[in-house]
Amino acid sequence: MKVHIINIGDEILIGQIINSNAATMANYLNEYGLAVEEMKTVSDQRESIQNAVGQALEVADIILMTGGLGPTKDDITKTTLAELLGLELAFHQASFDNIVRLFAEFGRQTDDRYKIQSFMPVGATVLINKVGTASGMWFEKNGKIVVSMPGVPREMQYLMQNEVLPRLKAKFQMPAIQHFTLQTMGKGETDLSDMLEKLETEQLPAHIKLAYLPDTILGKVRLRLTAKGQDTDLLKSELNTHISTMKNILGTLVFGEGDTSIEAEVGKLLRSQNLTLSTAESCTGGNIAKRLTSVAGSSQYFLGSVVAYSNPIKEQVLGVSKQTLDEYGAVSEACVKEMAVGARKLLNTDYAIAVSGIAGPDGGRPDKPVGTIWLAIANKEQVYSKKLQLGSDRNRNIEMTTSTALNLLRLLLIGQEIR
Amino acid sequence: MKVHIINIGDEILIGQIINSNAATMANYLNEYGLAVEEMKTVSDQRESIQNAVGQALEVADIILMTGGLGPTKDDITKTTLAELLGLELAFHQASFDNIVRLFAEFGRQTDDRYKIQSFMPVGATVLINKVGTASGMWFEKNGKIVVSMPGVPREMQYLMQNEVLPRLKAKFQMPAIQHFTLQTMGKGETDLSDMLEKLETEQLPAHIKLAYLPDTILGKVRLRLTAKGQDTDLLKSELNTHISTMKNILGTLVFGEGDTSIEAEVGKLLRSQNLTLSTAESCTGGNIAKRLTSVAGSSQYFLGSVVAYSNPIKEQVLGVSKQTLDEYGAVSEACVKEMAVGARKLLNTDYAIAVSGIAGPDGGRPDKPVGTIWLAIANKEQVYSKKLQLGSDRNRNIEMTTSTALNLLRLLLIGQEIR
Repeated sequence: MKVHIINIGDEILIGQIINSNAATMANYLNEYGLAVEEMKTVSDQRESIQNAVGQALEVADIILMTGGLGPTKDDITKTTLAELLGLELAFHQASFDNIVRLFAEFGRQTDDRYKIQSFMPVGATVLINKVGTASGMWFEKNGKIVVSMPGVPREMQYLMQNEVLPRLKAKFQMPAIQHFTLQTMGKGETDLSDMLEKLETEQLPAHIKLAYLPDTILGKVRLRLTAKGQDTDLLKSELNTHISTMKNILGTLVFGEGDTSIEAEVGKLLRSQNLTLSTAESCTGGNIAKRLTSVAGSSQYFLGSVVAYSNPIKEQVLGVSKQTLDEYGAVSEACVKEMAVGARKLLNTDYAIAVSGIAGPDGGRPDKPVGTIWLAIANKEQVYSKKLQLGSDRNRNIEMTTSTALNLLRLLLIGQEIR
Repeated sequence: MKVHIINIGDEILIGQIINSNAATMANYLNEYGLAVEEMKTVSDQRESIQNAVGQALEVADIILMTGGLGPTKDDITKTTLAELLGLELAFHQASFDNIVRLFAEFGRQTDDRYKIQSFMPVGATVLINKVGTASGMWFEKNGKIVVSMPGVPREMQYLMQNEVLPRLKAKFQMPAIQHFTLQTMGKGETDLSDMLEKLETEQLPAHIKLAYLPDTILGKVRLRLTAKGQDTDLLKSELNTHISTMKNILGTLVFGEGDTSIEAEVGKLLRSQNLTLSTAESCTGGNIAKRLTSVAGSSQYFLGSVVAYSNPIKEQVLGVSKQTLDEYGAVSEACVKEMAVGARKLLNTDYAIAVSGIAGPDGGRPDKPVGTIWLAIANKEQVYSKKLQLGSDRNRNIEMTTSTALNLLRLLLIGQEIR
């Protein structure tokens, strides 16, 4: 079953808005076992729409469209489709009643524009849009299906969930499709694919695909297995087998499953072990705290942070010794260790993360080039430290340092030996 | 000049990631006066890529592609394009040198994987990607141009800005186009368009368009004037006239020009007035410090922060009185005022920003629902405070609070009366 998505709208083509509808629709369809073969965005002009639908009708079985159904002159999707499919327009009472009802909710009266908007193609199944004035349309031609929906995300979502997906499910025998994602940190795409080469070449059947999705800013790689077939349960058990193989191969490189983040996983570990955390941040400027607190409920384990962007604060608030700063400088193993110990004491937490480095783009020195960063993690017993040598991209250095520090803490919390 | 964008990647087709590359590329092209006719997303499989490029070659003059250039098995764009265009692959020393350089930055060695990734189509112009291992490719065939770039946003952005757009500009006779952007904070799109209605309807000529670009997360609206014509200097002087009109109408709602941020503008003001800043953050969890320090050189005016996510830290580190916390709670005017005063003293700065609130999604109470946030700004003379009532979206609450606090400081620094 080949599905094409066509989003109509100049505001997408000029880059004024990002096309999130296509992703939302694809997610819905995947849950129903329908894979999207192609997504296309075209201008809201007659020729563009007709060409796009015409091309799609040649190869696709199901065509889902959004956009161009509003009450204004430049909304021509309905008339264009009616013309393309050879259908007349006629006043559709149920559509108008819906508009009247919506206006009444806001104590407003409709006008003639909405009478015109209530004209629908005769022979199309009209999909009443209870959250907006533009009805959707379901066309069938030579066993192919064309659905037109408004481009307003919540109106498209309403029609997909309440009208389109149920009809598709009733009409077609769907192939089963299953996804499973592992999130990894510590090695790049290439190293991971080396580790998984045998699995990919010798063990994965043709109907199961492994995709590498690196995030070079956050410094992680998501590994997504996709299985297509007939029997959902069979696919699930197949995926589980290969996922556990991958976990065995990758070990502690895997930090989570599905849609998660390193800060969320560190939070789970701290909560389950009933531990508290603080941070002392120089070059990350509060980004470790910011990412930790982006997780709802983080106040249960994250107590606070001292962003010591200046040396006096390192000295007077965190208690880094003047001698250390004079002798080794702020970007040094000695300094971050004292920062971690000082933050842990001051903020009274079980663990403290400390970071000091040169985020760039300027401020480098021959012995300490831009991207030189020291990390330390202190607990009651000891202080771990690690040196990073990153690049010259300030934002990336800050995010990578944050990810690396959180991952280092994760490894400590799961009892991994740190070298 | 017809431009088509083709984004390759199953992760887009299954809705796992939203395709932001297409919008970014369209924005770049628009600034150069090139309009995008079609955006298409297809699977990273040989047949899909060949069909997409084949179809585009029939109608488009310029085809810009992203995705499928990584070093792993599922990255087949390069070989597919070489096959389609009848080109051999050969080892490309400059591409490999670039990879070696990138690895050296991280103190790592390359391996054979990257030798293979350095094979490029003979006859294509190789676009060296200084921020990633995958080189871009520029093909010309029958006067048509096909460009292939990596799908990693920052790598695509680097190649567009440094290699692709300059080549397109050199190759084609573009109409003269000029943009000027004003950044505003404090009022929404609708209020702004009311204020600018007379300008839009009576003063702007047909060849100058005003676009409203709201950012509902950061809480700002960019106003972009775009002028198209023949004479660049004429367009510039026309834009200047209308920009100064807009500035007069909008007054202090305008915080900056072009590609800037509220944190960068606040930084400029602090630096020019030789003032220092610190923050005391509860519900923003370090985000104000993080955004201030995302600006290179911010260490000249931003000294540090105390993220007081727990009440004991508000009390013991920032010196908020126990009585205040007991009587009014942490989310109160009294508390943020004491936090601001305490941070200013502790971190020894001219100004201090303090924030305490309920970011959500949970933690609300009848008298203090989710989204209730108190801000305070202290200087030597006095302490200003402000209450915000935001929504239930945690991330948006954090970013909006950060933007509002920084904007409040900006208004104080330019001598605006705060109410």
